Parts: sequence; C-alpha cells; structure tokens
Amino acid sequence: MGDKLPEGVQKMFKAKNFGHLATLMKDGSPHVAPVWVDCDEHHILVNTVEGHIKVNNVQRDPRVAISITNQENPYQRIMIRGRVVEIAHEGAEEHIDVVSNKYQGRDYDRTKPEYVRVILKIEPSRISGVRV
Amino acid sequence: MGDKLPEGVQKMFKAKNFGHLATLMKDGSPHVAPVWVDCDEHHILVNTVEGHIKVNNVQRDPRVAISITNQENPYQRIMIRGRVVEIAHEGAEEHIDVVSNKYQGRDYDRTKPEYVRVILKIEPSRISGVRV
Repeated sequence: MGDKLPEGVQKMFKAKNFGHLATLMKDGSPHVAPVWVDCDEHHILVNTVEGHIKVNNVQRDPRVAISITNQENPYQRIMIRGRVVEIAHEGAEEHIDVVSNKYQGRDYDRTKPEYVRVILKIEPSRISGVRV
Repeated sequence: MGDKLPEGVQKMFKAKNFGHLATLMKDGSPHVAPVWVDCDEHHILVNTVEGHIKVNNVQRDPRVAISITNQENPYQRIMIRGRVVEIAHEGAEEHIDVVSNKYQGRDYDRTKPEYVRVILKIEPSRISGVRV
C-alpha cells in the first residue's frame, strides 16, 4: 500500500471538484476526460463503468495521471501520476450514490441500468502542485 | 492542415475555461496538467515555456489529449485527441498577454524573465463530448 495521501490532497478530492483522468490508448497515445472524483486515505477513487474507454485503457495499462483544480479557485491545482492498483466491483453501486450526492445533491440517476459500475483505485507515485 | 474547429469547440476554448493537457513521459506513462487555453480556427493553442515537462514531452512524442469543461457548467465538456504540429516561438510573447488578459484581465506578470515562451499548436484528430 502506498503512502497516506497528504491532507490537502484529500481535501481537494473530497470537495466538489472535477478531476481530469489521463489514460493510455492501445497505441500508447494519451486520452483524458473529466471525471467525478473521491478518495480514501491512500487512493484517488474514480467511479466509472465497465467497457468505457478509460476502463478498457487501464485494464490494458494501469498507468494513469490525474489533474484537478479547485472549482472556486482554479489556480489551486494538484497533478498526480500513478497507477490503478484495483478495479473494484464491490461497493461500486453504493459508491456512485455517495459521489452523486457530493456533486448533485441526490442519488445517482440510473438511466442506463445495464451499466456495470467499477471503482478505479489509483495509487499515486508522484504528487505535485499547490496543496489546498 | 486539419479541419476547421467546430464553432462550439472554438467557443469553449475562447472562453475563460481551463484545459487539462495530457502528454507522454519518456517511459510512455501519461502526464496531465491544467493549462490556460486558446485556439485559432484550426488548432488548440497552449502557451507554455521551453524546458517545462509538457514541452519536453511533446518534443519527444507529439501525441496529446486535452479535456475541458465549461467553468460555469462543468457538465458541458469536450475531449480532444490529437498531436502538436508546431512548437512556435514566433508571437509567443505577445500571445501570453492575450491569454493572460482573458484569464486575469491584465498582461502577463513576467516574474521569470528567463522564460522562453512557446505556443503548442494542437491539431485534433478526434473530438468528442458535448458542444457548447
């Protein structure tokens, strides 16, 4: 298990900020997309869906990067490089409601019940940027 | 020269929104960082500094991706994959003032006069997401 995330990092990822998750396409080129984020004491958490590009990408190559700015002050920013150490099914359905409540103030609107949700657990290897 | 950028894309990159630029490290792993952005009719433009990680990265491998959300409605988002087709010195000093005026309402504060500014000109190969 990696180091405990600094408090400022946890604060940034627990707040209602959007992360931008970079993954690697099959040809090694980068892909980046905005994502809802969360964290535990050791990992950045991204709740997403089996079969989506970012999930296919990290199943092939777990190396990722994520950048985030404070929605209220975009000059506060954190950049992280690391890897996905687990793609968790367990708890992913409950977790999307927790995350949805943070961002939208309500449970997740399941318009696509066929979605199989997963949590990408990202272990940082390098963290830089201003800590809030 | 690539296709003309759709009007909605130009609007998103001309507005006061932050882009998140993904590049490739030497070992092929992704790096992503928030950046000020601009565009012309054909390219996404990122004004940055020689020697910075993202510039070193694109000099080695021009493949990039950039995602952007509307600061006023983060559910409006655009994701772009493409490549840096030019690293321009010409006009880069003037351009950072244009960009700084967009984001900060004033010319760029040159606290590091040793910086050699460059404009990364990104030609999209794929654009997805909601168009504003």
